Amino acid sequence: MQEQLQEQRLEINEDCIFCKIVKGEIPCAKIFEDDKVLSFLDIAPANKGHALIVTKNHYETLLEISDDVLDDLMLKARKIARAMSSALGCDGFNILMNNKKVAGQLVLHAHVHIIPRFSGDGINLNWRPKKYKDKEIDDFKEKIKSFL
Amino acid sequence: MQEQLQEQRLEINEDCIFCKIVKGEIPCAKIFEDDKVLSFLDIAPANKGHALIVTKNHYETLLEISDDVLDDLMLKARKIARAMSSALGCDGFNILMNNKKVAGQLVLHAHVHIIPRFSGDGINLNWRPKKYKDKEIDDFKEKIKSFL
Repeated sequence: MQEQLQEQRLEINEDCIFCKIVKGEIPCAKIFEDDKVLSFLDIAPANKGHALIVTKNHYETLLEISDDVLDDLMLKARKIARAMSSALGCDGFNILMNNKKVAGQLVLHAHVHIIPRFSGDGINLNWRPKKYKDKEIDDFKEKIKSFL
Repeated sequence: MQEQLQEQRLEINEDCIFCKIVKGEIPCAKIFEDDKVLSFLDIAPANKGHALIVTKNHYETLLEISDDVLDDLMLKARKIARAMSSALGCDGFNILMNNKKVAGQLVLHAHVHIIPRFSGDGINLNWRPKKYKDKEIDDFKEKIKSFL
């Protein structure tokens, strides 16, 4: 195992719980693994079957993930969502990635939630909309565009 | 404009509001556009600056998006998240994709929310965890794995 990890040259953060899961030091209910990503069931699920997919390398958020790993992460997230839909017969699913603590990221190792959804499951991922005043939306648009 | 669209051979759903935005029939606060995706500000934002990025072709959910478009969608979503972080000085952000009505998808045209987050912004995208009984998590794991 150690040899394999060295071959892959994983970037590990010794204090990170997801890195420990990737290294096999902490067990998980693993559903998928390849050279770049690992997927396992969340132990505190929104609904049973709720899966996480994490990068094997320790990236903190979406902003740090390399392009090829991001591609793999999302293609595999979709693969899992498809299998989950067939396996659980869910009516839909959420893909959620919280980036930084303020956004609800509990483990600071990039991960995507794949949450199976069922009618009447009591989960609420909505928000009370805020309102733009007058032309304020254009100010925000221009502000963001100026960094693109 | 019409010629351009014909050149691109967009797959449009005539009854879809996002397709109308893509075609320019409904205005939007556009922040980014390329041949595959369009990004604009949500008019009912969780926080001001909350952006959407949509595929130009009409795909209903993540499950139908072609691989190359999915790659582009996420790379560009990240590009926007990065610009948003610089422009708004937000402390973090959420990436959210609701798939199907039961998951909160209001417009049945694949789209990703990019939500800037600030301390004390009152947004709650959490859930009350459900609990697996005994070895139940292994049953769910095996069920999903059998479709992978």
